[in-house]
Amino acid sequence: MKLLITGGAGFVGARLARALLKKGALHGKPIERLVLADQFPPPADLQADPRVEARTGPLLAQCAGFAQDRFDGVFHLASAVSGECEADFELGLRSNLDSTRALLDALRAAGNVPRFVFSSSVAVFGPDASNPMPPLVRDDTLPTPQTSYGTHKLICEHLVADYTRKGFIDGRSARLNTVTVRPGKPNGAASSFFSGIIREPLAGQEAVLPVDPSVSHPVSSPSRTVEGLIAVYEASAEAMGGRAGLNLPALNVKVGDMLNALEAVAGKATRALVKPVPDPTIQRIVGGWSKGAVAARAEKLGLKPEADFADIILQYIHDHPAAVTEAARAAAANYERSRKA
Amino acid sequence: MKLLITGGAGFVGARLARALLKKGALHGKPIERLVLADQFPPPADLQADPRVEARTGPLLAQCAGFAQDRFDGVFHLASAVSGECEADFELGLRSNLDSTRALLDALRAAGNVPRFVFSSSVAVFGPDASNPMPPLVRDDTLPTPQTSYGTHKLICEHLVADYTRKGFIDGRSARLNTVTVRPGKPNGAASSFFSGIIREPLAGQEAVLPVDPSVSHPVSSPSRTVEGLIAVYEASAEAMGGRAGLNLPALNVKVGDMLNALEAVAGKATRALVKPVPDPTIQRIVGGWSKGAVAARAEKLGLKPEADFADIILQYIHDHPAAVTEAARAAAANYERSRKA
Repeated sequence: MKLLITGGAGFVGARLARALLKKGALHGKPIERLVLADQFPPPADLQADPRVEARTGPLLAQCAGFAQDRFDGVFHLASAVSGECEADFELGLRSNLDSTRALLDALRAAGNVPRFVFSSSVAVFGPDASNPMPPLVRDDTLPTPQTSYGTHKLICEHLVADYTRKGFIDGRSARLNTVTVRPGKPNGAASSFFSGIIREPLAGQEAVLPVDPSVSHPVSSPSRTVEGLIAVYEASAEAMGGRAGLNLPALNVKVGDMLNALEAVAGKATRALVKPVPDPTIQRIVGGWSKGAVAARAEKLGLKPEADFADIILQYIHDHPAAVTEAARAAAANYERSRKA
Repeated sequence: MKLLITGGAGFVGARLARALLKKGALHGKPIERLVLADQFPPPADLQADPRVEARTGPLLAQCAGFAQDRFDGVFHLASAVSGECEADFELGLRSNLDSTRALLDALRAAGNVPRFVFSSSVAVFGPDASNPMPPLVRDDTLPTPQTSYGTHKLICEHLVADYTRKGFIDGRSARLNTVTVRPGKPNGAASSFFSGIIREPLAGQEAVLPVDPSVSHPVSSPSRTVEGLIAVYEASAEAMGGRAGLNLPALNVKVGDMLNALEAVAGKATRALVKPVPDPTIQRIVGGWSKGAVAARAEKLGLKPEADFADIILQYIHDHPAAVTEAARAAAANYERSRKA
């Protein structure tokens, strides 16, 4: 089969690509070709796989060509992030709305009804004066997004549902939680600090905490997120239980508890590298997000959230040992031993 | 002030235009210019008003020019109807989605933050496997539309909310109920029969009833619909109580009760002109619509639904006497006298 991942060179996209290549098959069919469309080239390990074809350039310009590809399946992850969309309204419309529309129209033109997973976001939820947000957002909570990013994600969910209803694609929308711990550098997402406050201290560097430690948020590890995307792809339409967007399982965690877990895993000195520097813009954006999520439909697909934020930190340390100080690695090894004992 | 009505030559648009011209002012400011943008020219009485300027042609082509107009206010009513959108997917996307986006971008480019009323629809509601529809839809019922028309209306609600949040327009979305009794000929809307089963018998002609008399639906008269659009325009953002779409007041009525009211007002012979001819396509579309609506936010603005479907029939007879047989007019006059007695 021939698959497309948009945003396939990004953090989640590349991780998904690796998982699919390792799995070798999807939905019971061998993966012969994996096209990674992204504005940047994919990491070297992916480029080296003979099944991978990188298509580098703006997604919007690439979409028309996809009609000829007749992909069997598509994971649509490409997106401008929340902070970028707030700063540049037109970039958000182009990257998140126009590109998705062009992609859907290309798949419709192809005519082979590909399976399609759209990575939506819990950022679709937010408090409107007419619609206070519940403490935990559910699959069927009314979304009244309070960012352009959340607005575009929600709009795309509805496009995916309607193109699916019409039989042009076999689409489904999965709402991702904030993925943490992301490796590398901070990005333009308002949620970037949810990774920074763990990643930077583990590397022995100071990190800025722009919000109050009492802030609660639904998060998920990279591996559970990828697992969720694949499970949603492989689920039958019946198992999906509807065309509306579905929440992926979240660990609902307070920032203070993330820092407590960091201290437990990597020691007091590591945690001490996190410095509170309140940022009103980020506080305003994050204040409009949900404090936690429940994911009844995803759990019916057999998906579960992490049990503990310490597990998410350990996943990062195992996946990126070179980005972690020796002291933190040693502390983490001790922590794992004591936990097993 | 300078106003724009898109779809200003259509049934609701022309009626809104007449109401505004008669009122002379909106939100306390005199109406100096009223631009009616529509693919058809407006009725002669509107063309004759020196304040009216007709702009005839596809809306999408007209939008860019609106940036120079710097309208103080806009009523955006132009839309392809539900049946048309189901039959021609691209027409629906172009007329309902692309045109709204182009209009919003033109108003953003104008830079003067016009007040903006979007005519959404209760067709945003529908049953998804994950989201059974409640017997009565509320302002905050989760919309999972089951038609392209409803999908586009919902998407535009969210665009209006986000352009408003960003300060580009001062927008609000009002969900119209099925407007009945429409004069003239049947249109492509799946809901067209909600007018046809009253209008045609009153004219002495047979009418087709494509659904079961037990079908219940939220309806509103033309005058209450126009009243609702004006009230939503004039309401302060605070009185609107949020940026999410709001339901306009509905009379929730069974088709059988509509026919009973027709018999009460216009006699047995008139009602006998309605012939049941089941239409599976229309039944399927209407089966995905709400059975009734409640409109708590609109009622806070002082808006109320009609008390009785007979009132809606009488409104039509008074507004369009030439389209009603003498026998039906005489029966209606008797009915009104007996009701007053």
